[in-house]
Amino acid sequence: MNIAFIGLGNMGGRMAHNLLKAGLNVHGYDLSEVAIQHFAEAGGVVCDSPQDAAKQADMVITMLPAAKHVKEVYLGENGVLEVLKAGSLCIDSSTIDPQTIKDIAAVAHSKNIKICDAPVSGGTIGAQAGTLTFMVGADDQTFNEVKPVLSHMGKNIVHCGDVGAGQIAKICNNLILGISMAAVAEGMALGVKLGIDPQALAGVINTSSGRCWSSDVCNPWPHINENAPASRGYQDGFATQLMLKDLGLAVEAAGQVKQPVVLGGMVQQLYQQMCMRGNANLDFSSIIQQYLPQEA
Amino acid sequence: MNIAFIGLGNMGGRMAHNLLKAGLNVHGYDLSEVAIQHFAEAGGVVCDSPQDAAKQADMVITMLPAAKHVKEVYLGENGVLEVLKAGSLCIDSSTIDPQTIKDIAAVAHSKNIKICDAPVSGGTIGAQAGTLTFMVGADDQTFNEVKPVLSHMGKNIVHCGDVGAGQIAKICNNLILGISMAAVAEGMALGVKLGIDPQALAGVINTSSGRCWSSDVCNPWPHINENAPASRGYQDGFATQLMLKDLGLAVEAAGQVKQPVVLGGMVQQLYQQMCMRGNANLDFSSIIQQYLPQEA
Amino acid sequence: MNIAFIGLGNMGGRMAHNLLKAGLNVHGYDLSEVAIQHFAEAGGVVCDSPQDAAKQADMVITMLPAAKHVKEVYLGENGVLEVLKAGSLCIDSSTIDPQTIKDIAAVAHSKNIKICDAPVSGGTIGAQAGTLTFMVGADDQTFNEVKPVLSHMGKNIVHCGDVGAGQIAKICNNLILGISMAAVAEGMALGVKLGIDPQALAGVINTSSGRCWSSDVCNPWPHINENAPASRGYQDGFATQLMLKDLGLAVEAAGQVKQPVVLGGMVQQLYQQMCMRGNANLDFSSIIQQYLPQEA
Amino acid sequence: MNIAFIGLGNMGGRMAHNLLKAGLNVHGYDLSEVAIQHFAEAGGVVCDSPQDAAKQADMVITMLPAAKHVKEVYLGENGVLEVLKAGSLCIDSSTIDPQTIKDIAAVAHSKNIKICDAPVSGGTIGAQAGTLTFMVGADDQTFNEVKPVLSHMGKNIVHCGDVGAGQIAKICNNLILGISMAAVAEGMALGVKLGIDPQALAGVINTSSGRCWSSDVCNPWPHINENAPASRGYQDGFATQLMLKDLGLAVEAAGQVKQPVVLGGMVQQLYQQMCMRGNANLDFSSIIQQYLPQEA
Repeated sequence: MNIAFIGLGNMGGRMAHNLLKAGLNVHGYDLSEVAIQHFAEAGGVVCDSPQDAAKQADMVITMLPAAKHVKEVYLGENGVLEVLKAGSLCIDSSTIDPQTIKDIAAVAHSKNIKICDAPVSGGTIGAQAGTLTFMVGADDQTFNEVKPVLSHMGKNIVHCGDVGAGQIAKICNNLILGISMAAVAEGMALGVKLGIDPQALAGVINTSSGRCWSSDVCNPWPHINENAPASRGYQDGFATQLMLKDLGLAVEAAGQVKQPVVLGGMVQQLYQQMCMRGNANLDFSSIIQQYLPQEA
Repeated sequence: MNIAFIGLGNMGGRMAHNLLKAGLNVHGYDLSEVAIQHFAEAGGVVCDSPQDAAKQADMVITMLPAAKHVKEVYLGENGVLEVLKAGSLCIDSSTIDPQTIKDIAAVAHSKNIKICDAPVSGGTIGAQAGTLTFMVGADDQTFNEVKPVLSHMGKNIVHCGDVGAGQIAKICNNLILGISMAAVAEGMALGVKLGIDPQALAGVINTSSGRCWSSDVCNPWPHINENAPASRGYQDGFATQLMLKDLGLAVEAAGQVKQPVVLGGMVQQLYQQMCMRGNANLDFSSIIQQYLPQEA
Repeated sequence: MNIAFIGLGNMGGRMAHNLLKAGLNVHGYDLSEVAIQHFAEAGGVVCDSPQDAAKQADMVITMLPAAKHVKEVYLGENGVLEVLKAGSLCIDSSTIDPQTIKDIAAVAHSKNIKICDAPVSGGTIGAQAGTLTFMVGADDQTFNEVKPVLSHMGKNIVHCGDVGAGQIAKICNNLILGISMAAVAEGMALGVKLGIDPQALAGVINTSSGRCWSSDVCNPWPHINENAPASRGYQDGFATQLMLKDLGLAVEAAGQVKQPVVLGGMVQQLYQQMCMRGNANLDFSSIIQQYLPQEA
Repeated sequence: MNIAFIGLGNMGGRMAHNLLKAGLNVHGYDLSEVAIQHFAEAGGVVCDSPQDAAKQADMVITMLPAAKHVKEVYLGENGVLEVLKAGSLCIDSSTIDPQTIKDIAAVAHSKNIKICDAPVSGGTIGAQAGTLTFMVGADDQTFNEVKPVLSHMGKNIVHCGDVGAGQIAKICNNLILGISMAAVAEGMALGVKLGIDPQALAGVINTSSGRCWSSDVCNPWPHINENAPASRGYQDGFATQLMLKDLGLAVEAAGQVKQPVVLGGMVQQLYQQMCMRGNANLDFSSIIQQYLPQEA
């Protein structure tokens, strides 16, 4: 099976590497010279354009920064849908709005090409280790066809529904995540200010109704979890600017269907303030700085 | 050991009943005739006033609606601190602000009486079953003395720190809870509006970084959890007006120490809108109605 | 002077009518048959396409729903910039994001065509009466050239700065407007619930530091101002969905420059909830329904 | 006429001074030695306690920090209601919650003593100049009786309704003020970040629908108004901590009647963050620092 992999950045490069390690034949494309060089060293076949990568491919995987890049790669003047043969499969693992992938899928469908959305969680660590979670939007047959390939790159391959459902699941999860992280930050900072020991407070929360991933796995107060970014200066986590991007997708998608997201609309702005103040690359749990007398 | 139990309402009545079942000698007081009658039927000794209940007591337990009642029972003109003998123990299980119990404890200390705060979670069901969680604020010795008694009424007796720390833990936990419930409501409603199946969405969230007590145990979307209030018309849960009360305590305590609680300040008002619209007695997960086209 | 007018809807149609009444020669285009017919009856020359209207024109005026329409009319395959002669002037009176008009202006500049943004306030009533306010983004010379033409359609022609500044002024004004209207609604509803007479309360506010356009001209409480939409069932005002659109532009523009708009991000969602509940066409002062026990 | 003036601080001291200048006979009390000394130098008769000041008085005026002080002065163990003769008049100019003054009035009524609330706006400058605005809650007859005395201290004496209505008017006005100031800060900061000149932006807003006291009289951007605190480093204005106090009163009063104040609940926390960061004494228009890359 020939796979075309478009987008070999921090995430895509590591994912492609795992496909190569599994013995698959991967043709790759990226704008970055550095990205291409890493890919070539790992045994990938370097191509000059997305079309060049796609023309011999049975499957296309895309991992791109935003919807406009995804649209251009699939539907643009030199888009891959023009050269793919009927019956091909496409997987978009970018995190974008649900409507864009549905629109692309409609065009692909008219050419008898199948496409699914499969955004990921797990970050660069999961991409490297091959332990990503894929949230897949596809019909049953397509899901069964892409699952073996995705399994080389991740360990949880979750079928969320038809095309678009993977994106919906991801942005709704991250909407809840972005809010609950701020909530834990607010609660921890309040408790400590009122005089309780942060370990004792976290202990109560994590065995009670306030517990959440943001309190037990990734608590924003330092040294509650030694493995959390908060215990290493908020480095090497899920960057605040990426959380800001995902909240932007949630708010935008909500606007398209006239669905109010009151907390999301506000919390987005709190992360934006963090980015304005130069903290875009810190882990998003650094939002706790909003609640401390001095910013870090 | 003689115990005086002041406040025999929905919670206190059931708690006192468990003490009686354990064979303890309980003198009780409440303003409500009905509450007193239930207590008497269960074998309690009915008293005419808090002082009347307290004058023979080795220990006083209070379970009252608000700080002003607690202050009156302990410090008021006919308060129990006036009649308790030196060396007595007091447990306040009401949910009130941390400062009030610290103030009362200071007075009690001057009379050589020990007092601890021990607010609960678990609701009337936990009170009846004797499975409450107690969040205790006390010094080590006092904690060890009250723990056996609390164990007749609850199964998790958590030592949170010195006096006041139980209240701090409870209001911080419930602050996070109130926000994360609204976050889950917002995320579930958005996902469903965008077209994903609610079961599939909840499945992703509950195995991902959005998971929390509000998504896995008490999901606000009907029939995600058959045991959750959302699956029985939001009946018999943690009433919206009680969540509103606890958020009010958190916001008030935050104000006393000049600590911003941006999300708490806003979410409090969302629950208040629910109460204004006649939903005060529904489970607080009914906040999802804020996100639906028609209110229930 | 030949003017091409693209977009003859509720606003554009009335504006073009005023140009015709002033004796100007106007070629017009719209997708709607009804719009075209009204325009023809008023003496306009009906054209088959934007290019058809523009090819003889000295000036193009556009009044379109959103940025994508503006981009298509100017830069699309059959865009007017392809047929306009060097030295022509374009005025875009649509309300869109500032970046789009700057991008279009850059292309126009390379063809020696001048373009300015001139969004309006004043609604359909102002458009009909020729009393609109135009917020113009243009260099000094261009401003002087467009001012006489705009004066046939409006009475306040405000020079806000270079191209884009008109849009910036409009979205920042409407951001403040959307928030202050909600603030007045909140304050009026609170006061009345606490027992003060609404007329007395409005009297105090309007002579004190709470006064604003939303309190004195367009108070959301009925019958404070008999001319306000609140006094006629929130009909015939500035529609909630248009306020929602403008807040969306503000939040989007803020995101592009990483500027937090905490209140705007939240208030946008309150108006969105109004639209979700079927109130999209009511005047935006109907936001006061968020604060009343029963929605209208 | 003998007047007892209780509370001779920054506001009360200047107000009492104006009564003395008008030739009235004023007996005063304050806890502060400095305050008393200033009062004595101005010709006031210094008293040892509120009762001492009140016992010969025909009228009592109070200007105190919070509800608890007001309650103590009127209803406490040595409260003035015990010594005032029937038919006396009391004016409370403190800013407190409406319910407290209603409760005090009920007690006063039973002793045939009239009391009205008359909180002020205008700050220390207005207090010194005798140009305060008084918002009076009283029946018609009482209003007519207190108006001449208030006229020595202020120039606008507004009758808001029955007792309590003065407080309601003030907290509702200041609720709107606190929100609209944040709105103007948000809009000005956004516009400038997007590239418009702040003077041009303020010019548009102040002649359009975004105009408000916070944009035209007290614009938070420096040098829009040379007389505004923003143009003198946010000094000598209405302190952020006083705005925080008034928003706290609004949110508390709203909670008592189950009225949601969504924006107020959130904006209160923004001002609280300012206070946490050491800016409590800056003018409240310094809230614009929330929107700037670096705090001042």
